[in-house]
Amino acid sequence: MGAFATVSEKVAFSTEKMTKQNVFDSTHMFCDVYGLEPGQEQKAHAHAGSDKVYYVLEGTADVQIGDETRRLEVGGLAHAAPGVAHAVKNPGPARVRLLVFMSPKP
Amino acid sequence: MGAFATVSEKVAFSTEKMTKQNVFDSTHMFCDVYGLEPGQEQKAHAHAGSDKVYYVLEGTADVQIGDETRRLEVGGLAHAAPGVAHAVKNPGPARVRLLVFMSPKP
Repeated sequence: MGAFATVSEKVAFSTEKMTKQNVFDSTHMFCDVYGLEPGQEQKAHAHAGSDKVYYVLEGTADVQIGDETRRLEVGGLAHAAPGVAHAVKNPGPARVRLLVFMSPKP
Repeated sequence: MGAFATVSEKVAFSTEKMTKQNVFDSTHMFCDVYGLEPGQEQKAHAHAGSDKVYYVLEGTADVQIGDETRRLEVGGLAHAAPGVAHAVKNPGPARVRLLVFMSPKP
């Protein structure tokens, strides 16, 4: 991306599955924008040595961190520490866009 | 913060200087919200071993990365690789709020 990116222009959706668009990728971290149509999800998983962050750019998302699931609106953030299971689902009816960070890269 | 935070409620400003509110702090990264009144800035500096990210939540910010300065609106993101000088200034007239990540913690 170079040093600058316009996250608000990173808009992509697919009826097949959740989309991921890379924003930047560096030695210590990477940053993606996810796009989820209603009903689409990223299933629960964990990264043994990495932190993961979801930040809601658009829509309403059900985010699971460990044993807890919360419904997040725009401006909501969730952080999964290393080894902690995390998942996200779009309950609809609107589309969801998320800004996602992981560090370090797994 | 626990695993969840509401970044949209992290609103703080000071006439003295730019504010920083921590959102979360983990082994590999930390996340703050900065608040800048018109004219306030974070002067150019670099972190030898860490990546730094500014994401514009509110307002218009002049962000310098290395030798380049760009005016970013809401949804704009800037990434400073390790060792690269970076700075941010609020040119006004509106307030600026930024979501800021650093990894690893310096």
